[in-house]
Amino acid sequence: MSNQECEVRAQEAADGCCPALLTSPLDEEQAGELAKVFKALGDPVRLRLLSMIASRDGGEVCVCDLTPAFDLSQPTISHHLKLLRQAGLIDGERRGTWVHYRLLPAMTDRLAGLLTRPAGEPLPAPAAAPGGRA
Amino acid sequence: MSNQECEVRAQEAADGCCPALLTSPLDEEQAGELAKVFKALGDPVRLRLLSMIASRDGGEVCVCDLTPAFDLSQPTISHHLKLLRQAGLIDGERRGTWVHYRLLPAMTDRLAGLLTRPAGEPLPAPAAAPGGRA
Repeated sequence: MSNQECEVRAQEAADGCCPALLTSPLDEEQAGELAKVFKALGDPVRLRLLSMIASRDGGEVCVCDLTPAFDLSQPTISHHLKLLRQAGLIDGERRGTWVHYRLLPAMTDRLAGLLTRPAGEPLPAPAAAPGGRA
Repeated sequence: MSNQECEVRAQEAADGCCPALLTSPLDEEQAGELAKVFKALGDPVRLRLLSMIASRDGGEVCVCDLTPAFDLSQPTISHHLKLLRQAGLIDGERRGTWVHYRLLPAMTDRLAGLLTRPAGEPLPAPAAAPGGRA
């Protein structure tokens, strides 16, 4: 993938804006809400599921196509998908026998925005100030 | 904060590139490695600590300035800081009595890149295809 393809669509990154995580201290409520989303991402199976859903041509995956990639039971996979759904990262729709999942890009865009340093922000440099007691 | 300030520095987002999370299925090793970092972010106290460190003018915070913001013991705060450090999100340097922490922006840049959709990617649309058994 080229660097150009990696370029961020600034407008989208700016939606649901602005990055509070890197530019100002989060309050308890913000931190509690955000932590739930990151916790949902903090599991290898859920990350793989999310990447399979997000990268699928057509933007949608049947749960029946997700399960075979894992050495896990259908209920376990469904539980992981439920946690991703509760975190607002994916949505699912039952059609016939199977549930079909798709990425909710608003949430990944929001996280990307939160983790993106504002333009022009200098790199933190190791400070030369002497350490001292508070 | 203006949208302009929220614009992503594409070059930095492209470093450590490219977003595998949204554009191709992660393999088990990648998912395991990434999950550790997201897990470190999946806690409200750690998110608040990270935001306090990242947003501090000068880029560095003495642990003695972090602890008073929380109703938690110094060892508990130190444990959370250790997890952030192990995840590669912050670094710390002891000077005198206190450890001083700073953001490691390479990791947050990497996560931002992973969560950023490639330019030009269409929004996933609810597919009209009928559901069927696999």
